[in-house]
Amino acid sequence: MPRVDGRQPDQLRPVRITRNYIKHAEGSVLIEMGDTRVICTASVEEKPPLFLKGEGKGWVTAEYGMLPRATGTRTQREAARGKVGGRTFEIQRLIGRSLRAVVDLTALGERTVWLDCDVIQADGGTRTASITGAFVALVDALNHLKGQGLLSRIPVTDFVAATSVGRLKGGLLLDLCYVEDSSAEVDMNIVMTGSGRFVEVQGTGEEASFTRQEMNMMIDLAAQGINRLIFAQKEALGEIASFIGG
Amino acid sequence: MPRVDGRQPDQLRPVRITRNYIKHAEGSVLIEMGDTRVICTASVEEKPPLFLKGEGKGWVTAEYGMLPRATGTRTQREAARGKVGGRTFEIQRLIGRSLRAVVDLTALGERTVWLDCDVIQADGGTRTASITGAFVALVDALNHLKGQGLLSRIPVTDFVAATSVGRLKGGLLLDLCYVEDSSAEVDMNIVMTGSGRFVEVQGTGEEASFTRQEMNMMIDLAAQGINRLIFAQKEALGEIASFIGG
Amino acid sequence: MPRVDGRQPDQLRPVRITRNYIKHAEGSVLIEMGDTRVICTASVEEKPPLFLKGEGKGWVTAEYGMLPRATGTRTQREAARGKVGGRTFEIQRLIGRSLRAVVDLTALGERTVWLDCDVIQADGGTRTASITGAFVALVDALNHLKGQGLLSRIPVTDFVAATSVGRLKGGLLLDLCYVEDSSAEVDMNIVMTGSGRFVEVQGTGEEASFTRQEMNMMIDLAAQGINRLIFAQKEALGEIASFIGG
Amino acid sequence: MPRVDGRQPDQLRPVRITRNYIKHAEGSVLIEMGDTRVICTASVEEKPPLFLKGEGKGWVTAEYGMLPRATGTRTQREAARGKVGGRTFEIQRLIGRSLRAVVDLTALGERTVWLDCDVIQADGGTRTASITGAFVALVDALNHLKGQGLLSRIPVTDFVAATSVGRLKGGLLLDLCYVEDSSAEVDMNIVMTGSGRFVEVQGTGEEASFTRQEMNMMIDLAAQGINRLIFAQKEALGEIASFIGG
Amino acid sequence: MPRVDGRQPDQLRPVRITRNYIKHAEGSVLIEMGDTRVICTASVEEKPPLFLKGEGKGWVTAEYGMLPRATGTRTQREAARGKVGGRTFEIQRLIGRSLRAVVDLTALGERTVWLDCDVIQADGGTRTASITGAFVALVDALNHLKGQGLLSRIPVTDFVAATSVGRLKGGLLLDLCYVEDSSAEVDMNIVMTGSGRFVEVQGTGEEASFTRQEMNMMIDLAAQGINRLIFAQKEALGEIASFIGG
Amino acid sequence: MPRVDGRQPDQLRPVRITRNYIKHAEGSVLIEMGDTRVICTASVEEKPPLFLKGEGKGWVTAEYGMLPRATGTRTQREAARGKVGGRTFEIQRLIGRSLRAVVDLTALGERTVWLDCDVIQADGGTRTASITGAFVALVDALNHLKGQGLLSRIPVTDFVAATSVGRLKGGLLLDLCYVEDSSAEVDMNIVMTGSGRFVEVQGTGEEASFTRQEMNMMIDLAAQGINRLIFAQKEALGEIASFIGG
Repeated sequence: MPRVDGRQPDQLRPVRITRNYIKHAEGSVLIEMGDTRVICTASVEEKPPLFLKGEGKGWVTAEYGMLPRATGTRTQREAARGKVGGRTFEIQRLIGRSLRAVVDLTALGERTVWLDCDVIQADGGTRTASITGAFVALVDALNHLKGQGLLSRIPVTDFVAATSVGRLKGGLLLDLCYVEDSSAEVDMNIVMTGSGRFVEVQGTGEEASFTRQEMNMMIDLAAQGINRLIFAQKEALGEIASFIGG
Repeated sequence: MPRVDGRQPDQLRPVRITRNYIKHAEGSVLIEMGDTRVICTASVEEKPPLFLKGEGKGWVTAEYGMLPRATGTRTQREAARGKVGGRTFEIQRLIGRSLRAVVDLTALGERTVWLDCDVIQADGGTRTASITGAFVALVDALNHLKGQGLLSRIPVTDFVAATSVGRLKGGLLLDLCYVEDSSAEVDMNIVMTGSGRFVEVQGTGEEASFTRQEMNMMIDLAAQGINRLIFAQKEALGEIASFIGG
Repeated sequence: MPRVDGRQPDQLRPVRITRNYIKHAEGSVLIEMGDTRVICTASVEEKPPLFLKGEGKGWVTAEYGMLPRATGTRTQREAARGKVGGRTFEIQRLIGRSLRAVVDLTALGERTVWLDCDVIQADGGTRTASITGAFVALVDALNHLKGQGLLSRIPVTDFVAATSVGRLKGGLLLDLCYVEDSSAEVDMNIVMTGSGRFVEVQGTGEEASFTRQEMNMMIDLAAQGINRLIFAQKEALGEIASFIGG
Repeated sequence: MPRVDGRQPDQLRPVRITRNYIKHAEGSVLIEMGDTRVICTASVEEKPPLFLKGEGKGWVTAEYGMLPRATGTRTQREAARGKVGGRTFEIQRLIGRSLRAVVDLTALGERTVWLDCDVIQADGGTRTASITGAFVALVDALNHLKGQGLLSRIPVTDFVAATSVGRLKGGLLLDLCYVEDSSAEVDMNIVMTGSGRFVEVQGTGEEASFTRQEMNMMIDLAAQGINRLIFAQKEALGEIASFIGG
Repeated sequence: MPRVDGRQPDQLRPVRITRNYIKHAEGSVLIEMGDTRVICTASVEEKPPLFLKGEGKGWVTAEYGMLPRATGTRTQREAARGKVGGRTFEIQRLIGRSLRAVVDLTALGERTVWLDCDVIQADGGTRTASITGAFVALVDALNHLKGQGLLSRIPVTDFVAATSVGRLKGGLLLDLCYVEDSSAEVDMNIVMTGSGRFVEVQGTGEEASFTRQEMNMMIDLAAQGINRLIFAQKEALGEIASFIGG
Repeated sequence: MPRVDGRQPDQLRPVRITRNYIKHAEGSVLIEMGDTRVICTASVEEKPPLFLKGEGKGWVTAEYGMLPRATGTRTQREAARGKVGGRTFEIQRLIGRSLRAVVDLTALGERTVWLDCDVIQADGGTRTASITGAFVALVDALNHLKGQGLLSRIPVTDFVAATSVGRLKGGLLLDLCYVEDSSAEVDMNIVMTGSGRFVEVQGTGEEASFTRQEMNMMIDLAAQGINRLIFAQKEALGEIASFIGG
């Protein structure tokens, strides 16, 4: 069964990572996964969040948003509705946790890094693209602190990237685009490190369920895709990549 | 390494399911997993949500709350803060998805079942206890509709229950209590059906990651625990259990 | 005219007070007045509210909530609506004032006691049951502070309890259940102390009015009921009761 | 003990009722009780509230506000805080109930009358002044409907007015001004009709309690004051007064 | 073409400024421009806003509101809606900027003056009436500070007042009343000082546009009107007027 | 006095307009004015707003947002704060009015066009860039409707664009960048049509005022700049430009 955009089942969409996309931010990236485009910025605040005050360590947190017309039909702004929706909360918590898993928060010191992931065009996989892009923005921001002498090294222990896999009409597919995602029976988001360890595994049946064998095959698919994404991160970072996890 | 409450690594806490706990609700359960106590009610509304209007099918949705002093120190009410927090959104979406996976929404017809899971005492595992308890409340509410002649059968295709597993100081543990949960490096919530299929797998490293082997072992642990929870659901439901998935 | 549940006009519903209902709270009670069931917890915070900072005295405040399905048809959560309703505000202010009337706030010292009254099943009289139950939870919490050596005595000057009376089809009734309450022409909530003094008298005509004679008779009815409720509080508290108002 | 403004214990402050104060409203009044000044408007909406749709009757509801500098120190606007406070809710519910007690809602027909009571200068007793003034605005609005032929008579069954009484250093006082109110041990608001029946009795101990004898004496004081207020309403309404309760 | 109220095109409505309208406020004014009536109060807070802390200067800020029935049909309260609307924000920012333009914020010292402009009856031109009235309230409040010895002089550098002009069916009109304003093609609000300098010029086409010549003529009209308003301010202030801008 | 970026006082920053920037929207533009970058999308909804229902005409409305790190230091999201700020309201009302001034709303028919202007990088002049860019997105969306046969012509009567001018240390400057804007004494935003008519003139003294001569010179500067912006719009639109205002 051919995919809607002609890809093989185990094929990622073209990925493009553009660094230094926003001049004000300490780190900023435009990540494009096919037609999904997300601006990821990393902003450094020179104090930790309240709950870590005086603990001698820092924090990495994320916020996520979508422009109203990033989607096929216009979505009302969360600012206009006066509240952040459940899906947004879920995604920003996921992004934050994923990146904290590879940051040495003690080495980061008493500061907060805010990762803002704003989808300007959506075509499925916005949360996984956000994680993959935000990692690069985060490294750039930390490298900037190192350049200023505020850090002696980049306190990142490994690469981290994410992709989705799903089951659609019984077949398993890597990196779902929107059309695929919206009719998938099972949807799985995987976050992995450069050394092949899991940070998050979120498999969800949408009015459906899945077997253990299917789960194993989906994880295999995802692992391959994430390896390629981490390769793209390394290419984008150039020589800075060699300072990660050292 | 002995557990804080003396359990074996693969041992569930005592589970108790009390049906018909609230007289007004079509289905209602008090579920106790050790010291975690959750009131689950199922309320039937004789119309579908707006987005399903005229689609000839129904919906199952969930809300989750916690009494302010369900926890060790008092938590501010979400009503007083004026907004529902991200964690609550995440949990109520999980409960809703988990139960929809075993409901035949077309057979349910144009109605909505609201599952309210309110934690009156928390000691870890409140979201998984909510799923396990809400399933029983849902079956009771649907059986009530059948009793009124509004449904010809209980439109539930399988049992569903949930538990948590985690890695703590390197060891893997089933059904974490609060003390264990708060220092676990890895936390996994699993939702499975009576026939052993997955509905949700959510594994999360807290500033940590985990290997594929660990994931497999955690899933094995969870599957055992869920079997025992489904046994408890069947005992609680008595003969009604035989009408599920028939 | 017989009452809907067969009671005499001057008869309370069966009252049951279960102490230590929630393991985390300094004081906690499940109070049942017939089918009305309220969990009352008392939580001690070791600082006064802002407006009393440095005044050398403490504060007692209350919050009130209702589970969505405590009522005959499901009520939307105040957290989901994003605001606390007028009725809730009215009730929590009443509970707080009622208990402060019998607490020596100076002897309490610079701390705050939060009373949370959460209705898990409603059948009329939830605000008066909340006051009656919260009193016991409060005493337990203060006794706990005494046990820790933080207070030299329980700074409570008298017992306090509450009940409702009403006029229904011209007859006067004590302790209205929901069916009675919803068709009463006049509704009165009375809060009294163990020594027979009034703390609150709130009589309200619902599109109706009442004479002075009726008011006097309603107060007589309420006074009898409150005496019996205070007896139930004393029984529940056992020997601790003897330390009140000493 | 002389009062702060030289009044006798049983003496009202000067009352002044100015009708037709706002040109747009169907009924509008400026009521002055000493230095307390409240603008009361009655606005007619030609449909009932949702919960009365199709019931063949109308509704009277009230909202209450205070200008930021109506008080001795500036109070933050509720609009700026983004929510209506508990005290405001309590007051507007009281005003609404008080007026509904003397309106024949069936004769009013399927319409809503909104009473807006806005305090432009506060010196105690704003809620009771609001009730007393809103009554006159309501009668004017209903007379306006009668003048337009939309009502055959003014569907008001009796006069209604309100005042406060309190206990201050043991003495009982009528119509408390702000200085008296803020140090009163007991505060009672009474709403009575022209025929001497009670609509609301709200007696409250502020960290204090009161005896039955005190309550009776306070009610006597209030009743005298309310008679004089109803006299003032009649004078203000002129010949329209004769159409009330006929 | 005669105006709806018989005025000449270049004629202001009658203006009346009543000082000391609210007894609690340091400065307070009732300004009436025809049927538009606004209560303006100036409240002094003895600390600067957060963003000026330690800067050695003060701030002047404004809030604006409208009673629900100030308008022809009842408007819902912003407090009840839970948020301040865009129009209100626009107006209160305009009032604040207009008055800051004539205040020496350094001479004011580390304090905040809050100007509250509350429309009790609206008939067009409420924002310009607010500016004109608030100026007088501000001067009174600052004169009060001077009287207390907290300021050595009134730190106001010039008079400031405002009016509207508009194009209606091609003709240019000064000081639009509501009927004129709501059908004007072009609406311009001008804020000018006593020495004829501009503080704000806001010209807006409502689904229309205007030529440069029209703009010049509208400004000429406005300048005349503002001169007369400043004359009214001087009359109201009496001898205090001579201390402005000295 | 040379400008911070070396421009002449009457020189615009480089302007670049990229059409079809977001694939989902009926019209979409990335506009760059120097380092200010705004995504403008036009979304067509096939129904008018409520207040125009059944009036036989349409509406054009705008919303405005800024990514958190569009600015030099991170700005909190309005969604996270739970409300839209005053500045945002002001800007989105300005954009909407500006575009409605050149749209024939009757010819548009019963539909709504939503213009979303989201600043991804800010360096002053975001509101004027939004207007200039949104115009092109609007034309594209209307041309799209024409292409679908839903409109017989593009119902736009003229071009419209906007720029800012300001007084800085006494000198007058066109198209202020952020550094200039933040220290300008006077700030003026002008919206003009292709035929040289004004749609909006908003001149504001920031704790300052300006003379009539200065205003005239600022308008001259702005008019030149707007001519050049409209030239850029025409270049971007290509042959579609010839269908405007025909």
